[in-house]
Amino acid sequence: MKIISRKINLSTKGNGEIINITDYVQSELKKTKISTGIVTVFIPGSTGAVAAMEYEPGLINDTKDLFKKIVPESNKYSHDSTHTNNGNAVSHLRASLVSPSITIPFEDCSLSLGTWQQVVFIDFDNRPRDRKILLKIIGE
Amino acid sequence: MKIISRKINLSTKGNGEIINITDYVQSELKKTKISTGIVTVFIPGSTGAVAAMEYEPGLINDTKDLFKKIVPESNKYSHDSTHTNNGNAVSHLRASLVSPSITIPFEDCSLSLGTWQQVVFIDFDNRPRDRKILLKIIGE
Amino acid sequence: MKIISRKINLSTKGNGEIINITDYVQSELKKTKISTGIVTVFIPGSTGAVAAMEYEPGLINDTKDLFKKIVPESNKYSHDSTHTNNGNAVSHLRASLVSPSITIPFEDCSLSLGTWQQVVFIDFDNRPRDRKILLKIIGE
Repeated sequence: MKIISRKINLSTKGNGEIINITDYVQSELKKTKISTGIVTVFIPGSTGAVAAMEYEPGLINDTKDLFKKIVPESNKYSHDSTHTNNGNAVSHLRASLVSPSITIPFEDCSLSLGTWQQVVFIDFDNRPRDRKILLKIIGE
Repeated sequence: MKIISRKINLSTKGNGEIINITDYVQSELKKTKISTGIVTVFIPGSTGAVAAMEYEPGLINDTKDLFKKIVPESNKYSHDSTHTNNGNAVSHLRASLVSPSITIPFEDCSLSLGTWQQVVFIDFDNRPRDRKILLKIIGE
Repeated sequence: MKIISRKINLSTKGNGEIINITDYVQSELKKTKISTGIVTVFIPGSTGAVAAMEYEPGLINDTKDLFKKIVPESNKYSHDSTHTNNGNAVSHLRASLVSPSITIPFEDCSLSLGTWQQVVFIDFDNRPRDRKILLKIIGE
């Protein structure tokens, strides 16, 4: 059994941008030579989220629309009164409906995803960010 | 420390069907003879979700209703324009509000669930499916 | 590679109370002397949830409001007809929008959280509870 740590660096546009990070995760996995195990993909930050979805342009739009509908920009939020410079309460709240963490199994050095299933990072922040996604790979 | 992979095969009806998979997971866990650790339960597919809940008929209905209310069938979705044969944008969007993955601790070969807490698979797809749920069991 | 189990005992007020448990998790982590790995934080109970967020008073209010808006008290729920003594369908449904489980990486015995990111337990139940949060720490 081994445990290996990796990082993925991303420059994001924010505002709900959804980035397909499957190839990055898969590529780091291959390099570890660990054959079977789990990888935890984690964003250290409370306005980002990690998830899995079909990365199809129509569905990407639908997903962005869904989070805008559930947490509308037009509401008043207490967080925006506290942090007057940010105005990113919606970013935090939308992220809290997904998760900063996903754990995915792999076999033969390959993520055990469905045919149409991709690993994505969603940047809900309201400005461009430089992000570090953390990977912990455990297996043998 | 050991890592063991198992699969659960399910025939599902779709349309938000919620299936109690606790006994399947527990049974596979027992067979591994691993006493303490974590099990990652994962659905390789973007219209399914894995969660934990009280498996009570009233609450099952309430849960189905909740996802129908948050992601209504009657809206127009871009994904349904792209994949004209599927019409399952709502399946993807509802699944994205849960997660394809849950990691649960266990002790003495037994899942550390609450008294009323069960592990469930939710099939949000709009048709019956044959599903493979993946388990990765890590521990000693 | 080692695996260590720990528990955090909490007395909660319920009704969506959000408790910052970062220091508890961090403190248990330090005691294990495991340097690098993952910790799974799990609530055995279906009316509680574990998440990560910026623990800021304004945002705490916004988060409580969001779950009340998505799952309103005023609706009729089937679960409340079945369990006439509880009336906590909303507790279950709100918890199902978060998760009972989060897996967080750590390095140098320290949780790999963002600057403003905290680990929280949310007690959605409609009454005070004594809760045991489970930690499984895997690493080396």
